[in-house]
Amino acid sequence: MKYISSAKKWNGWGHADKRFPLNKLNPDFLKILSTLLEKKEFQASPSTGWKDISIPDTRLSPAQIKYLRKISAVSRVSTNKFDRIVHSRGRSLPDLICLRSGVIDEFPDAIVYPVSRTEIAGILDFAQKHKMAVIPYGGGSSVVGGVNSIKLKKQNGILVVNMERMNRMQEIDETSMTATFECGISGPDVELALNPSGYTLGHFPQSFEFSTLGGWLAARGAGYFSGVYGKAENMLVCCSMVTVQGILQTRDVPAPSEGPDLNQLIVGSEGTLGIIAEATVKIHRLEKKINHKAWLFPDYHTGILVLRRLRQVGIRLHMARLSDPEETRYFSQMNNKNEQGGRNTVLRLQKKILFLFGYKSPVVMLTVGEPGQYYWIKKKNIFNKIKYISLGEKPVTDWFASRYELPYLRDELLNVGIAADTFETSVLWSRLEKLRDGIYSAVQKVEKKTAIKYLLMSHVSHAYETGAALYFTIIYPLSTEPLEQWGIMKKAVTDAILKHGGALSHHHGIGTDHLPMLKQENDVTYFFLQSLKKDLDPEGILNPGKLV
Amino acid sequence: MKYISSAKKWNGWGHADKRFPLNKLNPDFLKILSTLLEKKEFQASPSTGWKDISIPDTRLSPAQIKYLRKISAVSRVSTNKFDRIVHSRGRSLPDLICLRSGVIDEFPDAIVYPVSRTEIAGILDFAQKHKMAVIPYGGGSSVVGGVNSIKLKKQNGILVVNMERMNRMQEIDETSMTATFECGISGPDVELALNPSGYTLGHFPQSFEFSTLGGWLAARGAGYFSGVYGKAENMLVCCSMVTVQGILQTRDVPAPSEGPDLNQLIVGSEGTLGIIAEATVKIHRLEKKINHKAWLFPDYHTGILVLRRLRQVGIRLHMARLSDPEETRYFSQMNNKNEQGGRNTVLRLQKKILFLFGYKSPVVMLTVGEPGQYYWIKKKNIFNKIKYISLGEKPVTDWFASRYELPYLRDELLNVGIAADTFETSVLWSRLEKLRDGIYSAVQKVEKKTAIKYLLMSHVSHAYETGAALYFTIIYPLSTEPLEQWGIMKKAVTDAILKHGGALSHHHGIGTDHLPMLKQENDVTYFFLQSLKKDLDPEGILNPGKLV
Repeated sequence: MKYISSAKKWNGWGHADKRFPLNKLNPDFLKILSTLLEKKEFQASPSTGWKDISIPDTRLSPAQIKYLRKISAVSRVSTNKFDRIVHSRGRSLPDLICLRSGVIDEFPDAIVYPVSRTEIAGILDFAQKHKMAVIPYGGGSSVVGGVNSIKLKKQNGILVVNMERMNRMQEIDETSMTATFECGISGPDVELALNPSGYTLGHFPQSFEFSTLGGWLAARGAGYFSGVYGKAENMLVCCSMVTVQGILQTRDVPAPSEGPDLNQLIVGSEGTLGIIAEATVKIHRLEKKINHKAWLFPDYHTGILVLRRLRQVGIRLHMARLSDPEETRYFSQMNNKNEQGGRNTVLRLQKKILFLFGYKSPVVMLTVGEPGQYYWIKKKNIFNKIKYISLGEKPVTDWFASRYELPYLRDELLNVGIAADTFETSVLWSRLEKLRDGIYSAVQKVEKKTAIKYLLMSHVSHAYETGAALYFTIIYPLSTEPLEQWGIMKKAVTDAILKHGGALSHHHGIGTDHLPMLKQENDVTYFFLQSLKKDLDPEGILNPGKLV
Repeated sequence: MKYISSAKKWNGWGHADKRFPLNKLNPDFLKILSTLLEKKEFQASPSTGWKDISIPDTRLSPAQIKYLRKISAVSRVSTNKFDRIVHSRGRSLPDLICLRSGVIDEFPDAIVYPVSRTEIAGILDFAQKHKMAVIPYGGGSSVVGGVNSIKLKKQNGILVVNMERMNRMQEIDETSMTATFECGISGPDVELALNPSGYTLGHFPQSFEFSTLGGWLAARGAGYFSGVYGKAENMLVCCSMVTVQGILQTRDVPAPSEGPDLNQLIVGSEGTLGIIAEATVKIHRLEKKINHKAWLFPDYHTGILVLRRLRQVGIRLHMARLSDPEETRYFSQMNNKNEQGGRNTVLRLQKKILFLFGYKSPVVMLTVGEPGQYYWIKKKNIFNKIKYISLGEKPVTDWFASRYELPYLRDELLNVGIAADTFETSVLWSRLEKLRDGIYSAVQKVEKKTAIKYLLMSHVSHAYETGAALYFTIIYPLSTEPLEQWGIMKKAVTDAILKHGGALSHHHGIGTDHLPMLKQENDVTYFFLQSLKKDLDPEGILNPGKLV
């Protein structure tokens, strides 16, 4: 019953044999992008081959390797070059830049694949004894440096604990609507285990195929449909975390009043306090029918107003995704599928009549909901005094069909010398529009400073009672110093996010990339984290260089 | 605009001038109770007068009092006898037994009424310097010993920080639907501040009139309508807590992924890490109309099934309260209002036809919801294959009318020698019925051992996706050793709760009463708490003897 993931790319996103050709959606893709980036030619930057990367010998002695193979199994300890390269980095833009160039500071000395909590505990004991860093590894899809090979100076090596063999469903409680899993289980395996009984976990991040339950919990992840099914912090009922001090098991009681909520302390701990080994999560009945709808609004402010109204009257939409004018324009230009030869609805409408009717900076909202919800939307006067055009369901079904594919495009773009990155935040509704403006301004300043054109767009990805999550995509020509170039952009947008009261992250986490800003801006979190870290992992062996 | 609370009882519940006469609902109340408790006469146990209580002099020197009056104000430091007695205890059954008998171990040496975070910080500095215990005090309505005067051996005295003068709304953000309050604000004052703008916090615990926002947060409290508006942990957006180390301000970003959720660490900390001084909470639109409904089901299992279905299909009921057969029977016997002279619907139906129709152990469910929800209940087949009788809205409106009054009854019962206590838990649906049975068995064992009849009843008070909260009422004749007697009962029921996988508490908290069981059963929570406590309050001045 297990989902068999085909071999993954060592230096890019997803399945090794899968590509997203630049002209897939539009034969003129690169031409249009060239116009938008105001640059005629790009400097191609093909990847090096993994065999050409020079990698130091493992720092583990033969006796140490033998010992690890005794506490797990011979086949569950790898020191081979390919594995060590693949596990050295996650899948952020800087990670891909490093992997593709072959310039990598640190490699893990071994990858261990435990099958039980006892084995994990054994690995932690070993690491503690031999002063090794331990990096918990789920699907390796972190885009913030959450699994990068880093060790403290005093440490003698790096062990990656790849959880992929802890992938079973252990129990399902259909009365309480919970299921218990080993945390190395991947998205598809979770659904394969639940769907036959009529249930779903409902957690569908873009990394769904390649990420794990443990990773989602460790990073407080979100999926496309978290609006109804909840983020990682909402899905967790209880869990068992293997720490240096022993195994911590939280309780499964609903909404307790027995001190602070420890589950909420573990969710988001990013492998720095322990390794989340097993978890009981809420499950949901598979929906018999969901409805897709897309609307066009005259401007961003109106779109935000509708989305906010929807959420604040408590309407349960599986998804509510609102593109800003820049993203709406980008997709209407790009989604000109050559196999169909036609122009899509948005583009046609836009060109012919929109401007005349006051749709000067139109925005598109995609939603997915139960049929009955749309009855409520009318009843609750959500569209009261709102100008809108219903676009039917096609824009949503199109989006659905390609929702796991866009990250593949990033690899193709890198080949031709173009960088694509994403960043995200969450913020109160009252600050949302200013925050978005602030990020556009910050990027404009970077453009002036660096004389490089950045193509920026965003959408609201999740709506809450008090605010929303904003997801940004940024595309720009790679310079000859791509890491430094990325760092300048990253600092500018993160400073703008914090200045306008946004979260450092809504669902990607802190990792290495946001750590300097966490230290600087959120001294409270930092104080608490350090306090816990000191007691739970006094030697600092767990995922050094991330979060705390 | 402030809600003026009349003087409160020093030795009982609520307003000093308010009583709930034993014959209010039924002229035969005591006669019926006597039959149920299988005891003809009770030993009357009137309260002592507060003036007759002997109380030691304050341990604060005149210089210390003068200093405290300088950092706050002369009128904001009290050492008078009445205040010291009132603030020595909360409102648990053991608290009332102690207050009424005048046998109290410890009294606070002074009560300070700060008006700002700066003043609170000054008080903590003072306490730190002079080795004093500091007890944060909201409305003083804790029923688990959460505000009891306790100090460590090494400490020289006890200061109570009564937050009642920090009672203002500071800001309202109607876009984000949040409001910021000083945390000493009482329930009525919160609503008085919000209602004129069309908003509500929606938090209505039984202690509503006498408890504070800070207290709700500190104890992870729940209100009757938390099913829709959320428990304390759900209402909190961000807060500012004054600690010995300084003021900690959490962030207001929605659903962040920037490490563990510190708000969830502060909620439930019961004043042991710091004093929650200001908080931003979610607000909600005042409902235009809510519907009341009551149903009768043939037995407990059926009632539970309906409630679980309602919750698991995501129906937003403000309240869903399901009495077990024992509670249903008790209320149908007792609610025979003499002013109306008639028998209520339940009782009549029950006597005449119910038994014949298979309602052998009937249970009543009360609900409050938006009109539209009842459309959904039909549509979702909640009542599919379920036998039920609709009782209309009267049982709910009756309950509404008296929902804040029942605690007054406890004082009247104590006068005549009868104890009434409540305890509560939460548990997965799959364990709920066994847990309830287990508690009834545990109490039966106590009955055998002590040769005292205990009248026990319960209702489901809150329903969650994975489980529910159970609220028990226990009534019994007071013995001559009432504290010891209570301790035996408390231990028996708490052991049964833990044995069957229930929470030590769903909304009352840990306080002193559940502390021994927390230490024993939940070593993980305890380890985390100690770790935080050590760093945040190394001298242990904050609320000693509670939670950690």
